[in-house]
Amino acid sequence: MKPAIEIGFLLFPGVTQLDLTGPHEVFARLPHCRQHLIWKSLDPVQAESGLWLTPSATFDTCPGLDLILVPGGPGQTALFQDTETLDFLRAMAPSCRYVTSVCTGSLVLGAAGLLDGYRATSHWLWTDYLAKFGAVPVHDRVVRDRNRITGAGITAGIDFALTVVAELAGARTAQLIQLSMEYDPQPPFRAGSPDAADPQLVADLRERLADALAERRRHLDQR
Amino acid sequence: MKPAIEIGFLLFPGVTQLDLTGPHEVFARLPHCRQHLIWKSLDPVQAESGLWLTPSATFDTCPGLDLILVPGGPGQTALFQDTETLDFLRAMAPSCRYVTSVCTGSLVLGAAGLLDGYRATSHWLWTDYLAKFGAVPVHDRVVRDRNRITGAGITAGIDFALTVVAELAGARTAQLIQLSMEYDPQPPFRAGSPDAADPQLVADLRERLADALAERRRHLDQR
Repeated sequence: MKPAIEIGFLLFPGVTQLDLTGPHEVFARLPHCRQHLIWKSLDPVQAESGLWLTPSATFDTCPGLDLILVPGGPGQTALFQDTETLDFLRAMAPSCRYVTSVCTGSLVLGAAGLLDGYRATSHWLWTDYLAKFGAVPVHDRVVRDRNRITGAGITAGIDFALTVVAELAGARTAQLIQLSMEYDPQPPFRAGSPDAADPQLVADLRERLADALAERRRHLDQR
Repeated sequence: MKPAIEIGFLLFPGVTQLDLTGPHEVFARLPHCRQHLIWKSLDPVQAESGLWLTPSATFDTCPGLDLILVPGGPGQTALFQDTETLDFLRAMAPSCRYVTSVCTGSLVLGAAGLLDGYRATSHWLWTDYLAKFGAVPVHDRVVRDRNRITGAGITAGIDFALTVVAELAGARTAQLIQLSMEYDPQPPFRAGSPDAADPQLVADLRERLADALAERRRHLDQR
């Protein structure tokens, strides 16, 4: 029997759940794939959106992984100085075929020292910050450098996951999954990136998020 | 204080979680919005993808809703003859400002008699079936007819939710959310709809899903 492809998501309180649930839905359609939500205990954790998610493995019980994925979210401020979590990522990464992130998950990979010398992306508000970890920031939807694959903000997780499936199982499998998920996106507005959106909209969003961004930056700079 | 916008998702075992988690992530960014995951009990339920989701309200404790959303998924075969669930939807619908679905959730709305005479959509594999419930099938990404808003398959939930936000809070709020979620989709392939995909891919997917589709159809026809 073909061995399973083991995919592990780092779960944490305050995760942006779509960073995780988008790829989870894609990978669930990949044959021979087993998915794990990994955290310090098996107690349910609450995502940024209020949704409760339940870990399926702990740092201690997690199997060896083919791919590890770190999602983003405001709860990550607690991770930048969390030795237990950063050590777990550093311990897992060398035996993973792919070390990956969606959205600001790349900041956590960076804090763990796992993006030093790699091209990588993040949520557009944070991509340039990756330089502080020795990474080469790239403003693309999905960025691959050797075995690091990083996705841009939140919804990029779906594009990211289809790219990963094509890598793991071929383009045709990825296309079957795309069709089965009717992934033929038709955003009602042209506002999904700072280049596409009206500059005033970009300025307004930066202003609304200023406090939250400053808070996350403070935690990052304190490392 | 402005009253909250109450949004309720029907949760059930075997739900396609992205039908629910996509809109949940969008609505979480809508000011004054409270979201509820509603099922018969508060015990966690397992989604099609293996993810565990936890209800936050039951059919008995659920507050009045401004919007009810029925997601799809293979677990819905158990709902087509489930009087308790169909009665709950029929009881809630008249006081909801919007009665909505994503993916094959529209089949459950149809089974509850809530789409009779309405234009509506579903996952592309199921849209035409809506005619059996007296609905007028429309192959569009998001279809609105009076207060019924239905979305197409799985990933359409994000386009659906941004459309709903524009309706509830204006286009600018929807655009701010779209930008914050970096919803600038770039599918790696052109395979997301039966019109776009290579016909052989469509035929292959239909063949792979034939047993599952026949099973769901059998449950529907037995109603």
